[in-house]
Amino acid sequence: MTAPRRPGRRPGSADTRGEILTAARRVFAEKGFDKATVRGIAREAKVDPALVHHYFDTKEGMFAAAMKLPISPDEVIQLLVEGPREEIGERLVRLLLRATAAPETREPMIALIRSAMTNEQAVGMFREFITNALLFQVAGRLGVPHLRIEAAFSQMFGVIMGRYVLKLEPLASASEEELVELLAPTIQRYMGG
Amino acid sequence: MTAPRRPGRRPGSADTRGEILTAARRVFAEKGFDKATVRGIAREAKVDPALVHHYFDTKEGMFAAAMKLPISPDEVIQLLVEGPREEIGERLVRLLLRATAAPETREPMIALIRSAMTNEQAVGMFREFITNALLFQVAGRLGVPHLRIEAAFSQMFGVIMGRYVLKLEPLASASEEELVELLAPTIQRYMGG
Repeated sequence: MTAPRRPGRRPGSADTRGEILTAARRVFAEKGFDKATVRGIAREAKVDPALVHHYFDTKEGMFAAAMKLPISPDEVIQLLVEGPREEIGERLVRLLLRATAAPETREPMIALIRSAMTNEQAVGMFREFITNALLFQVAGRLGVPHLRIEAAFSQMFGVIMGRYVLKLEPLASASEEELVELLAPTIQRYMGG
Repeated sequence: MTAPRRPGRRPGSADTRGEILTAARRVFAEKGFDKATVRGIAREAKVDPALVHHYFDTKEGMFAAAMKLPISPDEVIQLLVEGPREEIGERLVRLLLRATAAPETREPMIALIRSAMTNEQAVGMFREFITNALLFQVAGRLGVPHLRIEAAFSQMFGVIMGRYVLKLEPLASASEEELVELLAPTIQRYMGG
Protein backbone atom coordinates (compact mmCIF):
# COMPACT_ATOMS: atom_id res chain seq x y z
CA MET A 1 0.00 0.00 0.00
CA THR A 2 1.41 3.40 -0.97
CA ALA A 3 1.26 6.15 1.60
CA PRO A 4 -1.62 8.54 0.85
CA ARG A 5 -0.33 11.87 -0.44
CA ARG A 6 -3.09 13.71 1.38
CA PRO A 7 -3.72 12.16 4.78
CA GLY A 8 -7.34 12.02 5.93
CA ARG A 9 -8.83 12.03 2.43
CA ARG A 10 -9.71 8.72 0.82
CA PRO A 11 -10.23 9.18 -2.93
CA GLY A 12 -13.73 8.06 -3.83
CA SER A 13 -14.96 7.99 -0.23
CA ALA A 14 -18.69 8.42 0.39
CA ASP A 15 -18.24 12.12 0.90
CA THR A 16 -15.72 12.91 -1.82
CA ARG A 17 -18.34 14.24 -4.22
CA GLY A 18 -19.73 16.49 -1.49
CA GLU A 19 -16.25 17.72 -0.61
CA ILE A 20 -15.54 18.55 -4.24
CA LEU A 21 -18.77 20.53 -4.46
CA THR A 22 -18.01 22.43 -1.26
CA ALA A 23 -14.60 23.30 -2.67
CA ALA A 24 -16.19 24.24 -6.00
CA ARG A 25 -18.59 26.69 -4.31
CA ARG A 26 -15.63 28.35 -2.56
CA VAL A 27 -13.54 28.56 -5.73
CA PHE A 28 -16.40 29.81 -7.95
CA ALA A 29 -17.28 32.47 -5.38
CA GLU A 30 -13.67 33.61 -5.11
CA LYS A 31 -12.49 33.42 -8.74
CA GLY A 32 -15.74 33.73 -10.69
CA PHE A 33 -16.90 31.17 -13.21
CA ASP A 34 -14.42 31.93 -16.00
CA LYS A 35 -11.24 31.84 -13.91
CA ALA A 36 -12.17 28.83 -11.80
CA THR A 37 -10.45 25.64 -13.04
CA VAL A 38 -10.99 21.94 -12.42
CA ARG A 39 -7.36 21.82 -11.24
CA GLY A 40 -7.92 24.67 -8.77
CA ILE A 41 -11.06 23.05 -7.41
CA ALA A 42 -9.24 19.71 -7.04
CA ARG A 43 -6.46 21.47 -5.13
CA GLU A 44 -9.00 23.17 -2.85
CA ALA A 45 -10.75 19.81 -2.24
CA LYS A 46 -7.37 18.07 -1.73
CA VAL A 47 -8.15 15.40 -4.35
CA ASP A 48 -6.68 14.42 -7.69
CA PRO A 49 -8.07 16.36 -10.73
CA ALA A 50 -8.86 12.98 -12.34
CA LEU A 51 -11.26 12.32 -9.49
CA VAL A 52 -13.03 15.61 -10.12
CA HIS A 53 -13.39 14.57 -13.77
CA HIS A 54 -14.71 11.20 -12.62
CA TYR A 55 -17.64 12.92 -10.89
CA PHE A 56 -18.21 15.85 -13.26
CA ASP A 57 -17.78 15.89 -17.03
CA THR A 58 -17.52 19.64 -17.40
CA LYS A 59 -16.94 22.79 -15.39
CA GLU A 60 -20.49 23.85 -16.37
CA GLY A 61 -21.91 20.63 -14.93
CA MET A 62 -19.88 21.08 -11.76
CA PHE A 63 -21.15 24.64 -11.38
CA ALA A 64 -24.76 23.49 -11.84
CA ALA A 65 -24.24 20.75 -9.23
CA ALA A 66 -22.40 23.05 -6.80
CA MET A 67 -25.18 25.64 -7.01
CA LYS A 68 -27.78 22.83 -6.90
CA LEU A 69 -29.32 24.13 -10.12
CA PRO A 70 -32.27 22.14 -11.42
CA ILE A 71 -30.80 21.86 -14.93
CA SER A 72 -27.32 22.12 -16.39
CA PRO A 73 -26.45 24.24 -19.43
CA ASP A 74 -25.77 21.05 -21.41
CA GLU A 75 -29.33 19.88 -20.86
CA VAL A 76 -30.81 23.26 -21.82
CA ILE A 77 -28.74 23.46 -24.99
CA GLN A 78 -29.52 19.84 -25.89
CA LEU A 79 -33.25 20.41 -25.48
CA LEU A 80 -33.21 23.64 -27.46
CA VAL A 81 -31.35 22.35 -30.48
CA GLU A 82 -33.34 19.09 -30.65
CA GLY A 83 -36.81 19.23 -32.17
CA PRO A 84 -38.40 21.66 -34.63
CA ARG A 85 -36.95 25.17 -34.72
CA GLU A 86 -40.44 26.70 -34.95
CA GLU A 87 -41.32 25.23 -31.53
CA ILE A 88 -38.20 26.41 -29.74
CA GLY A 89 -40.09 29.12 -27.83
CA GLU A 90 -42.57 26.64 -26.44
CA ARG A 91 -39.81 24.14 -25.54
CA LEU A 92 -37.82 26.76 -23.63
CA VAL A 93 -40.84 28.12 -21.74
CA ARG A 94 -41.97 24.61 -20.70
CA LEU A 95 -38.45 23.60 -19.68
CA LEU A 96 -37.98 26.62 -17.41
CA LEU A 97 -41.48 26.44 -15.91
CA ARG A 98 -41.03 22.75 -15.12
CA ALA A 99 -37.52 23.21 -13.74
CA THR A 100 -38.80 25.87 -11.34
CA ALA A 101 -42.16 24.30 -10.45
CA ALA A 102 -40.98 22.33 -7.40
CA PRO A 103 -39.57 24.25 -4.41
CA GLU A 104 -36.68 21.74 -3.97
CA THR A 105 -35.31 22.48 -7.43
CA ARG A 106 -36.36 26.13 -7.53
CA GLU A 107 -35.00 27.36 -4.21
CA PRO A 108 -31.26 26.87 -4.88
CA MET A 109 -31.66 28.77 -8.17
CA ILE A 110 -33.52 31.60 -6.47
CA ALA A 111 -30.84 31.68 -3.75
CA LEU A 112 -28.15 32.06 -6.42
CA ILE A 113 -30.07 34.90 -8.10
CA ARG A 114 -30.71 36.62 -4.76
CA SER A 115 -27.02 36.58 -3.95
CA ALA A 116 -26.23 37.85 -7.46
CA MET A 117 -28.63 40.76 -6.89
CA THR A 118 -26.99 41.89 -3.68
CA ASN A 119 -23.35 40.83 -3.75
CA GLU A 120 -20.69 42.09 -6.17
CA GLN A 121 -18.67 38.87 -6.11
CA ALA A 122 -21.75 36.70 -6.66
CA VAL A 123 -22.99 38.88 -9.52
CA GLY A 124 -19.70 38.41 -11.38
CA MET A 125 -19.86 34.66 -10.99
CA PHE A 126 -23.52 34.53 -12.06
CA ARG A 127 -22.93 36.82 -15.06
CA GLU A 128 -20.01 34.76 -16.35
CA PHE A 129 -21.90 31.51 -15.93
CA ILE A 130 -25.12 32.77 -17.53
CA THR A 131 -23.45 34.41 -20.51
CA ASN A 132 -20.45 32.18 -21.27
CA ALA A 133 -21.77 28.78 -20.21
CA LEU A 134 -25.38 29.21 -21.24
CA LEU A 135 -26.59 32.14 -23.36
CA PHE A 136 -23.64 32.47 -25.75
CA GLN A 137 -23.54 28.70 -26.22
CA VAL A 138 -27.21 28.68 -27.18
CA ALA A 139 -26.69 31.72 -29.42
CA GLY A 140 -23.77 30.01 -31.14
CA ARG A 141 -25.60 26.73 -31.70
CA LEU A 142 -28.70 28.44 -33.06
CA GLY A 143 -27.02 31.33 -34.87
CA VAL A 144 -29.00 33.94 -32.94
CA PRO A 145 -27.47 37.34 -32.02
CA HIS A 146 -26.45 37.66 -28.35
CA LEU A 147 -28.80 40.58 -27.74
CA ARG A 148 -31.80 38.50 -28.82
CA ILE A 149 -30.81 35.63 -26.54
CA GLU A 150 -30.53 38.10 -23.67
CA ALA A 151 -33.98 39.53 -24.46
CA ALA A 152 -35.37 35.98 -24.17
CA PHE A 153 -33.42 35.44 -20.94
CA SER A 154 -34.81 38.74 -19.57
CA GLN A 155 -38.37 37.68 -20.27
CA MET A 156 -38.00 34.35 -18.50
CA PHE A 157 -35.92 35.80 -15.66
CA GLY A 158 -38.65 38.41 -15.07
CA VAL A 159 -41.39 35.78 -15.13
CA ILE A 160 -39.60 33.53 -12.64
CA MET A 161 -38.87 36.48 -10.33
CA GLY A 162 -42.45 37.78 -10.64
CA ARG A 163 -43.92 34.34 -10.04
CA TYR A 164 -41.74 33.05 -7.21
CA VAL A 165 -40.02 36.00 -5.52
CA LEU A 166 -42.39 38.95 -5.92
CA LYS A 167 -45.33 36.49 -6.04
CA LEU A 168 -47.46 38.74 -8.22
CA GLU A 169 -50.98 37.48 -8.80
CA PRO A 170 -52.32 36.21 -11.16
CA LEU A 171 -48.82 35.41 -12.49
CA ALA A 172 -47.90 33.28 -9.45
CA SER A 173 -50.84 30.92 -9.88
CA ALA A 174 -51.12 30.93 -13.68
CA SER A 175 -50.97 27.45 -15.23
CA GLU A 176 -48.16 26.21 -17.46
CA GLU A 177 -50.56 26.31 -20.43
CA GLU A 178 -51.58 29.93 -19.85
CA LEU A 179 -47.94 30.96 -19.60
CA VAL A 180 -46.88 28.98 -22.66
CA GLU A 181 -49.63 30.65 -24.69
CA LEU A 182 -48.48 34.08 -23.55
CA LEU A 183 -44.70 33.66 -23.53
CA ALA A 184 -43.79 31.10 -26.19
CA PRO A 185 -44.46 33.49 -29.13
CA THR A 186 -42.21 36.09 -27.47
CA ILE A 187 -39.30 33.67 -27.06
CA GLN A 188 -39.92 32.29 -30.56
CA ARG A 189 -39.68 35.77 -32.03
CA TYR A 190 -36.42 36.55 -30.20
CA MET A 191 -34.93 33.24 -31.29
CA GLY A 192 -35.61 34.22 -34.87
CA GLY A 193 -38.19 31.57 -35.68
CA MET B 1 -49.87 83.60 18.66
CA THR B 2 -51.47 80.26 19.46
CA ALA B 3 -49.37 77.66 21.17
CA PRO B 4 -48.19 75.01 18.66
CA ARG B 5 -50.00 71.70 19.18
CA ARG B 6 -46.85 69.78 18.47
CA PRO B 7 -43.83 71.47 19.99
CA GLY B 8 -40.69 71.47 17.95
CA ARG B 9 -42.44 71.05 14.58
CA ARG B 10 -43.30 74.13 12.55
CA PRO B 11 -45.91 73.23 9.91
CA GLY B 12 -44.47 74.01 6.52
CA SER B 13 -40.90 74.38 7.78
CA ALA B 14 -38.07 73.86 5.31
CA ASP B 15 -37.77 70.25 6.33
CA THR B 16 -41.44 69.29 6.68
CA ARG B 17 -41.58 67.58 3.31
CA GLY B 18 -38.46 65.59 4.15
CA GLU B 19 -39.89 64.62 7.55
CA ILE B 20 -43.11 63.44 5.92
CA LEU B 21 -41.13 61.29 3.49
CA THR B 22 -39.03 59.80 6.29
CA ALA B 23 -42.23 58.96 8.17
CA ALA B 24 -43.76 57.56 4.96
CA ARG B 25 -40.81 55.22 4.42
CA ARG B 26 -41.20 53.90 7.99
CA VAL B 27 -44.98 53.45 7.66
CA PHE B 28 -44.85 51.83 4.20
CA ALA B 29 -42.15 49.42 5.40
CA GLU B 30 -44.15 48.53 8.50
CA LYS B 31 -47.72 48.35 7.15
CA GLY B 32 -47.19 47.68 3.47
CA PHE B 33 -48.54 49.87 0.72
CA ASP B 34 -52.24 48.95 0.99
CA LYS B 35 -52.62 49.41 4.75
CA ALA B 36 -50.56 52.59 5.02
CA THR B 37 -52.76 55.69 5.22
CA VAL B 38 -52.14 59.41 4.79
CA ARG B 39 -53.52 59.84 8.31
CA GLY B 40 -51.09 57.26 9.72
CA ILE B 41 -48.14 58.86 7.95
CA ALA B 42 -49.18 62.32 9.21
CA ARG B 43 -49.33 60.91 12.77
CA GLU B 44 -45.87 59.36 12.39
CA ALA B 45 -44.49 62.67 11.02
CA LYS B 46 -46.31 64.62 13.77
CA VAL B 47 -48.01 66.93 11.25
CA ASP B 48 -51.60 67.61 10.21
CA PRO B 49 -52.96 65.27 7.47
CA ALA B 50 -53.91 68.40 5.49
CA LEU B 51 -50.23 69.27 5.32
CA VAL B 52 -49.41 65.84 3.92
CA HIS B 53 -52.07 66.43 1.26
CA HIS B 54 -50.55 69.83 0.58
CA TYR B 55 -47.28 68.16 -0.42
CA PHE B 56 -48.59 64.97 -2.02
CA ASP B 57 -51.77 64.54 -4.04
CA THR B 58 -52.02 60.80 -3.65
CA LYS B 59 -50.66 57.93 -1.60
CA GLU B 60 -49.14 56.60 -4.86
CA GLY B 61 -47.30 59.89 -5.41
CA MET B 62 -46.09 59.89 -1.82
CA PHE B 63 -44.79 56.33 -2.20
CA ALA B 64 -42.96 57.23 -5.40
CA ALA B 65 -41.40 60.28 -3.67
CA ALA B 66 -40.54 58.35 -0.48
CA MET B 67 -38.83 55.61 -2.50
CA LYS B 68 -37.26 58.26 -4.76
CA LEU B 69 -38.73 56.54 -7.82
CA PRO B 70 -37.98 58.23 -11.15
CA ILE B 71 -41.65 58.18 -12.21
CA SER B 72 -44.95 57.97 -10.38
CA PRO B 73 -47.75 55.56 -11.34
CA ASP B 74 -49.88 58.55 -12.39
CA GLU B 75 -47.28 59.57 -14.96
CA VAL B 76 -46.93 56.04 -16.32
CA ILE B 77 -50.69 55.60 -16.65
CA GLN B 78 -51.09 59.04 -18.21
CA LEU B 79 -48.43 58.33 -20.80
CA LEU B 80 -49.79 54.91 -21.64
CA VAL B 81 -53.39 55.95 -22.20
CA GLU B 82 -52.45 59.06 -24.20
CA GLY B 83 -51.43 58.58 -27.83
CA PRO B 84 -52.22 55.81 -30.32
CA ARG B 85 -53.01 52.41 -28.88
CA GLU B 86 -50.93 50.68 -31.55
CA GLU B 87 -47.79 52.48 -30.27
CA ILE B 88 -48.29 51.66 -26.61
CA GLY B 89 -45.48 49.08 -26.60
CA GLU B 90 -42.97 51.56 -27.94
CA ARG B 91 -44.13 54.30 -25.52
CA LEU B 92 -43.74 52.01 -22.51
CA VAL B 93 -40.31 50.71 -23.53
CA ARG B 94 -38.99 54.23 -24.16
CA LEU B 95 -40.45 55.54 -20.89
CA LEU B 96 -38.81 52.82 -18.80
CA LEU B 97 -35.47 52.98 -20.61
CA ARG B 98 -35.32 56.76 -20.17
CA ALA B 99 -36.43 56.64 -16.53
CA THR B 100 -33.63 54.19 -15.75
CA ALA B 101 -30.91 55.67 -17.98
CA ALA B 102 -29.38 58.02 -15.38
CA PRO B 103 -27.85 56.52 -12.22
CA GLU B 104 -29.47 59.19 -9.98
CA THR B 105 -32.96 58.15 -10.98
CA ARG B 106 -32.19 54.48 -11.45
CA GLU B 107 -30.40 53.69 -8.20
CA PRO B 108 -33.30 54.30 -5.77
CA MET B 109 -35.50 52.04 -7.90
CA ILE B 110 -32.85 49.31 -7.98
CA ALA B 111 -32.43 49.66 -4.20
CA LEU B 112 -36.17 49.14 -3.72
CA ILE B 113 -36.12 46.05 -5.95
CA ARG B 114 -33.04 44.67 -4.18
CA SER B 115 -34.72 44.99 -0.81
CA ALA B 116 -37.88 43.39 -2.23
CA MET B 117 -35.77 40.44 -3.41
CA THR B 118 -34.25 39.76 -0.03
CA ASN B 119 -36.65 40.99 2.66
CA GLU B 120 -40.14 39.63 3.35
CA GLN B 121 -41.54 42.94 4.58
CA ALA B 122 -40.14 44.86 1.62
CA VAL B 123 -41.46 42.33 -0.88
CA GLY B 124 -45.01 42.74 0.45
CA MET B 125 -44.79 46.52 0.17
CA PHE B 126 -43.34 46.33 -3.35
CA ARG B 127 -45.89 43.75 -4.52
CA GLU B 128 -48.85 45.80 -3.28
CA PHE B 129 -47.51 48.96 -4.83
CA ILE B 130 -46.67 47.37 -8.19
CA THR B 131 -49.95 45.50 -8.56
CA ASN B 132 -52.55 47.79 -6.95
CA ALA B 133 -51.08 51.21 -7.66
CA LEU B 134 -49.59 50.48 -11.07
CA LEU B 135 -50.32 47.29 -13.00
CA PHE B 136 -54.01 46.84 -12.15
CA GLN B 137 -54.63 50.54 -12.80
CA VAL B 138 -53.08 50.27 -16.25
CA ALA B 139 -54.99 47.02 -16.87
CA GLY B 140 -58.26 48.68 -15.87
CA ARG B 141 -57.70 51.78 -18.00
CA LEU B 142 -56.74 49.78 -21.06
CA GLY B 143 -59.04 46.81 -20.57
CA VAL B 144 -56.15 44.33 -20.63
CA PRO B 145 -56.20 41.13 -18.50
CA HIS B 146 -53.98 41.27 -15.39
CA LEU B 147 -51.86 38.31 -16.51
CA ARG B 148 -50.93 40.10 -19.74
CA ILE B 149 -49.93 43.25 -17.87
CA GLU B 150 -47.75 41.12 -15.61
CA ALA B 151 -46.13 39.44 -18.62
CA ALA B 152 -45.23 42.93 -19.90
CA PHE B 153 -43.96 43.92 -16.45
CA SER B 154 -41.85 40.72 -16.32
CA GLN B 155 -40.22 41.51 -19.64
CA MET B 156 -39.26 45.03 -18.63
CA PHE B 157 -38.27 44.02 -15.09
CA GLY B 158 -35.97 41.35 -16.56
CA VAL B 159 -34.44 43.80 -19.02
CA ILE B 160 -33.73 46.41 -16.33
CA MET B 161 -32.23 43.77 -14.00
CA GLY B 162 -30.17 42.26 -16.84
CA ARG B 163 -28.96 45.67 -17.98
CA TYR B 164 -28.19 47.37 -14.68
CA VAL B 165 -27.80 44.72 -11.97
CA LEU B 166 -26.49 41.62 -13.74
CA LYS B 167 -24.85 43.89 -16.36
CA LEU B 168 -25.10 41.30 -19.13
CA GLU B 169 -23.39 42.29 -22.36
CA PRO B 170 -24.46 43.23 -25.01
CA LEU B 171 -27.74 44.06 -23.19
CA ALA B 172 -26.08 46.55 -20.83
CA SER B 173 -24.68 48.70 -23.63
CA ALA B 174 -27.45 48.26 -26.21
CA SER B 175 -28.94 51.55 -27.45
CA GLU B 176 -32.49 52.68 -26.79
CA GLU B 177 -33.30 52.13 -30.48
CA GLU B 178 -32.03 48.55 -30.52
CA LEU B 179 -34.04 47.72 -27.43
CA VAL B 180 -37.20 49.43 -28.72
CA GLU B 181 -36.98 47.40 -31.91
CA LEU B 182 -36.63 44.19 -29.94
CA LEU B 183 -38.99 44.80 -27.03
CA ALA B 184 -41.78 47.10 -28.27
CA PRO B 185 -43.52 44.37 -30.33
CA THR B 186 -43.49 42.08 -27.26
CA ILE B 187 -45.14 44.69 -25.03
CA GLN B 188 -47.54 45.65 -27.82
CA ARG B 189 -48.66 42.04 -28.17
CA TYR B 190 -49.25 41.64 -24.40
CA MET B 191 -51.20 44.88 -24.27
CA GLY B 192 -53.49 43.45 -26.92
CA GLY B 193 -52.73 45.97 -29.63
